[in-house]
Order: sequence, then structure tokens, then C-alpha cells
Amino acid sequence: MENRKLVTAAVLLIGDEILSGRTKDANAGWIAERLTEMGIDLKEIRVVPDDEPVIVDALNALRARYTYVFTTGGIGPTHDDITADAVARAFGVGIDYHPEAVAALREIFPGDRLNEARLRMARIPLGADLIVNEASKAPGFRIGNVFVMAGIPKVMQSMFRAVAPGLETGPKMLSETILANAKEGDVGTPLGEIQKRHPDVSIGSYPFQDEKGYNTNLVIRSRDPQALAAAKAEVLAMLDEVRAASSA
Amino acid sequence: MENRKLVTAAVLLIGDEILSGRTKDANAGWIAERLTEMGIDLKEIRVVPDDEPVIVDALNALRARYTYVFTTGGIGPTHDDITADAVARAFGVGIDYHPEAVAALREIFPGDRLNEARLRMARIPLGADLIVNEASKAPGFRIGNVFVMAGIPKVMQSMFRAVAPGLETGPKMLSETILANAKEGDVGTPLGEIQKRHPDVSIGSYPFQDEKGYNTNLVIRSRDPQALAAAKAEVLAMLDEVRAASSA
Repeated sequence: MENRKLVTAAVLLIGDEILSGRTKDANAGWIAERLTEMGIDLKEIRVVPDDEPVIVDALNALRARYTYVFTTGGIGPTHDDITADAVARAFGVGIDYHPEAVAALREIFPGDRLNEARLRMARIPLGADLIVNEASKAPGFRIGNVFVMAGIPKVMQSMFRAVAPGLETGPKMLSETILANAKEGDVGTPLGEIQKRHPDVSIGSYPFQDEKGYNTNLVIRSRDPQALAAAKAEVLAMLDEVRAASSA
Repeated sequence: MENRKLVTAAVLLIGDEILSGRTKDANAGWIAERLTEMGIDLKEIRVVPDDEPVIVDALNALRARYTYVFTTGGIGPTHDDITADAVARAFGVGIDYHPEAVAALREIFPGDRLNEARLRMARIPLGADLIVNEASKAPGFRIGNVFVMAGIPKVMQSMFRAVAPGLETGPKMLSETILANAKEGDVGTPLGEIQKRHPDVSIGSYPFQDEKGYNTNLVIRSRDPQALAAAKAEVLAMLDEVRAASSA
């Protein structure tokens, strides 16, 4: 097993539209998958409204607790885009028009088209680095351990891909999913015993319903491939027993 | 405008599978829509792992801050279902087999089938009321201002419907969505001016991309129908001007 330090992360989604149910967020799940693939442990997701003090409090709580924080939303050209100001406030720094961001916007919005609203997108907290990306001339930015990204999925994904290669990563979490073909309640007791014997793995049990009724996915996770294989073998043997008993 | 007190809520999703990206949560968005329809302001969503101290901390933070907290996940029959224990810990109460919950499970799991694992689902914090529902004999429960519900969407929805009629509600947030047929950057400046003139409404601007390129939804929200109508009229007039100018 690799002996590298764990790297953790939080995702902070900013936007009234998610809390009202109007927009169904897909960004958190996408980022979660990418981080897991990379060996970064996503430990928390929060969704907060477009409310500066609330954003500041959430950001300060999360950036103190985790290696990285990824935010999405609130960096556009309208009055309700207040994420950059909130991030500056959280870090106790000023905010100003970033010359490179202004120049990038100038490329696509010549003359009057680079109006006051669009220029707002070049306001970046002092000391932040721009996240230049392929999907949009309006950049995201990184300050400290916080990555500030757009809310539009395509733009957010482009920004994430731009920063991903520079992230510190830990040992990857390996995972095996086993379709139990058994009800969760029938495997629960022996599964708990297997979990106790294998403290190096984490065994999750995820019931679902399909047209045939209740079924269960068992997910075994570990950073140690040998520990994972040993636990998996016991789970498979246990499932054979449970299914034999229930068909007897 | 109604003069009723605002009612607020948070949603706490519990489960490693959401943070790993394996499961894409749909519960938070569904609850968000229901709460908005009912006149309850959803102020925060958090996702935390199956980790008791983390669940306890999040729950205590949220239940102190909002009128209601709705949790989903972690109340099944397996060892990784630790929500009931975490809730008991957060409230500083004991936990035991609830006779009515045991009796309900007995109805569908006769004899040996009500095994140790399934009996776990009858362990309820002391002082909690059961959330009896149509989708599952395993109940959710309410303790204080916290509603503890299943993670399976169909079961969660049935539990939510069982408790919804008893919830205190506030004045409903009214909402009008206007497809701008304009780019966000072209409406940003005048939209900000309209927002300043109408502090009783909240105007959100939501850019999106479709096959025709960038477009924008403007969402005007208020609890006061007259304030909403006045702001909407100004937004519509502004959009006519912006579109006329851009086609000139």
C-alpha cells in the first residue's frame, strides 16, 4: 500500500437557484467523480445562497478544514454574481480589475461590447491566479487552496481540467461493486461481521428498487489492493451462502 | 403581502456514495422544490460521509440555525447505517428498539426473517416520533426540528409526504421566469439598476448554452405579488430596449 498523505477536498456550490429547486445541480457529482479518480477524498459538499456573509462563513470553514475547496457559481456579469467579492472578503484581501482578465475579455468583446457588466467578470481578488480555460474568456481564479469556477457545467469542467494537473493527489481509493442479488436485510448481519474483520476496507451497502423488487449493491473500497481482494472474496462467499439459504 | 414569519430549512445528505460520485443525488433537488412550493425557505444543503462525529457536528450546526432539518440516508439494516446513532448522539439522548417500529417490521418479516440486521431499523432515538409511511415498513423519525428520512428516493418521498402537512409554513415565494433571448453580459448593467430600484424582489440571472449559443433566464422572485409584477414590467421593457439596440 502506498504511504502517501491523504488529500481532501470540499465543494461549495453557490446559488439561490439550486436551493429553490429550479436548477438541479450536476456539478458536484461530476467533480466528485473526477476527484475520486485522481486520489483526492471529497469530504463535504455544501450549497449556499447568493448571500455574501453566508458564503464567507462557509468558505472560511471549508478552506480551514480541507486541502482544497472548489466553488462553482456566481462569477458572471450580473448583480447577483457576488462570489469574487465574497472570496476576497473571506481572505481579507482587496479586489480589482485584473489586467490579463480584462485583456482576455477585450479579445471577444471589442469596443462598447466590453460594458460595465462584462468588466465585472475581470474583478479578481488581489493575489489570486487566473484559471484560464478553453470554454470561456471569463476566467476562474485560484487563491490559496480555493478554486473559484463557473456554474455553467461546460465552463466549470473546462476550468477544472485546467487546474487538475497541478493538484496534489493521494493514494487512489480502489473500489469493487458487487450486485448482491439479495435483500439488504438478508446480508446485513454477515456483512457487518466481514466489515469488523477487515478494518482496512470500507464496505458500503446500497439498496435499490427495480422492476424485480429490492436488490443491493455492495461497494468495497480500500487504498490497499490486497486488503480489497481479501474482503471481496469473503463477501462473495457470504453471498453464495445467503442466496443458498434463501432458496432452500 | 402576507405578514407571516419566515420558515427556513436545511437538507443534510448522509452517505459516502454521494461524495465518491458513485451515486448522483436527486433527493436534495426534489426536497428543494417541495419546500419552495410550500413556503419554506431552503437555506443550505450539506453532504457528509458515513462518519458519526461529522454527522453530529453538521446536524447540531444546522438544527440550531434553521427551523427544520431534513436528513436522508443511513437508516437501513447494515453496519454503515449510522444515522440514527448519530442523531441520538447529537441530541444527547439514548437509542433503543421502538416497539411500534418492531411491530411494523414484524408484519412483513415474520419469524427468523426479522433478523438482527433488520431489527437495526427499529432502533430509534429516545423521544423521537416515528414517520410512518406507505413505501416502507421501516420508519423514519422526527426528533425536535429534525426529520430523519431514508435515502432511497421513493421511500424518502413517501416519508416527506407523511410529514409535510404538519410543517409550519411561511408566505410563499412567488417566481416569474423570463427567457431573455439576450446574452447575460448585455443585460447585466440595466438589470442591476432594476434590482436596485426594487429591493423587495430578488432578480437572478442564469446563463445557459444551447444550440443557438448563449442565452439567459431571468428569474424574479418576491413574496409580494405587486412588487413582483412591477419589477417584471421593468425587466420586460428593458429586454425590448436591449434587443432593439443589439439588432440595430
